[in-house]
Amino acid sequence: MYKSQKVGAIIVAAGRGERMGGIDKIFTPLGGTSVLERVAAVFNDSPYIDHFVIVLTQDNLARGKHLLADKNLTKLVKIVPGGVRRQDSVEAGLNALPLCQWVVIHDGARPLVTSKLIAEVLEAAQESGAAIAAVPVVDTIKSAGEDNYVKSTLDRSHLWAVQTPQVFRFDIIKEGYAKASGDVTDDAALVEALGIRVKLYMGAYDNIKLTTPADLALAEVLCQRKEG
Amino acid sequence: MYKSQKVGAIIVAAGRGERMGGIDKIFTPLGGTSVLERVAAVFNDSPYIDHFVIVLTQDNLARGKHLLADKNLTKLVKIVPGGVRRQDSVEAGLNALPLCQWVVIHDGARPLVTSKLIAEVLEAAQESGAAIAAVPVVDTIKSAGEDNYVKSTLDRSHLWAVQTPQVFRFDIIKEGYAKASGDVTDDAALVEALGIRVKLYMGAYDNIKLTTPADLALAEVLCQRKEG
Repeated sequence: MYKSQKVGAIIVAAGRGERMGGIDKIFTPLGGTSVLERVAAVFNDSPYIDHFVIVLTQDNLARGKHLLADKNLTKLVKIVPGGVRRQDSVEAGLNALPLCQWVVIHDGARPLVTSKLIAEVLEAAQESGAAIAAVPVVDTIKSAGEDNYVKSTLDRSHLWAVQTPQVFRFDIIKEGYAKASGDVTDDAALVEALGIRVKLYMGAYDNIKLTTPADLALAEVLCQRKEG
Repeated sequence: MYKSQKVGAIIVAAGRGERMGGIDKIFTPLGGTSVLERVAAVFNDSPYIDHFVIVLTQDNLARGKHLLADKNLTKLVKIVPGGVRRQDSVEAGLNALPLCQWVVIHDGARPLVTSKLIAEVLEAAQESGAAIAAVPVVDTIKSAGEDNYVKSTLDRSHLWAVQTPQVFRFDIIKEGYAKASGDVTDDAALVEALGIRVKLYMGAYDNIKLTTPADLALAEVLCQRKEG
């Protein structure tokens, strides 16, 4: 049972944010509190998390450390620089984590994650060793050929759009990364490639990833709703 | 060439809006102008549209007619009641349209559509007789088995999320509807079933469908950006 095992978390916030039009999203305030502080606080306050690390770009490292220094984040063990590719950043996080049996990987750009969702995905991972938050796809999805004509309309009843948190047994995700090759944008795919079954757990449509300036505006509204 | 042919449009706004928490989205103001007025104005002002009909729920019919009565919508030929299913509403629209060679079908809940996008999808439809606005999928998409374990990770490089406007040659969409069976949520699929090739044309991520109250808040922000 994971309740007697250690749970570490990696908050990955080392992306370039190319669609943000020059805004550094992790330092942008939402309801008066920066995205980075918000997401760090959720993990710090979660009773299921024993410790966590944050991965930032080299450029943001000093500012991030300064920002979080006096926030009483007792479970934050380290803030480390990421790499060029997402997988380099996740690996930097894995290497910085103290001993743990479970790892929760979370996008720093999803500040609306809740402690409840973290706990539930962790629980969902117990059976096979891997579970990820995801939501059923609501749009009609079509696949296209090279000429951009429709090839087929997918049956969306079985399709899920992946989010984070994603939870893996530590040894599994380590092995996944050890065997990774090429460009990895999806941690769960590495685990699937090992033959491990990955459980899809119902995330939240509100658990958006901040990608564009409009997403920041939406997140602001969602925060206001949540916080009354 | 469609430039010498008539183009009709159907604005379908007869959904129940079950995820809106009691808000009637089509009458909700965005930037001071209701969703219904906004979308009607875009179609009325498009130089490519000759005439259009609007499909509302029976309950909204009187209010919608009253709202639009003095808006100088010279191309609006009729406001008709829809049916229980989406396909009943689209068919009511098709039956209400004056003679035309092309039909543009548009969700009334996508008020951020532009005249430019309508023109471009119409142009894209010329080759095969059918084109639809869509955007490349940005999320990682996985398909699940009955047990909600991941079955496969889809190659999203060929996946598109469908939007509207959708443009069809009139005779094609009529035939598609004549042969339709079961519950139809996707007009293009009916046309694909006839063996007609459907072109995917790059829509806009801003061209959102208002589904939840948060979408209304996002649309408000997007309107502000657009309108300066």
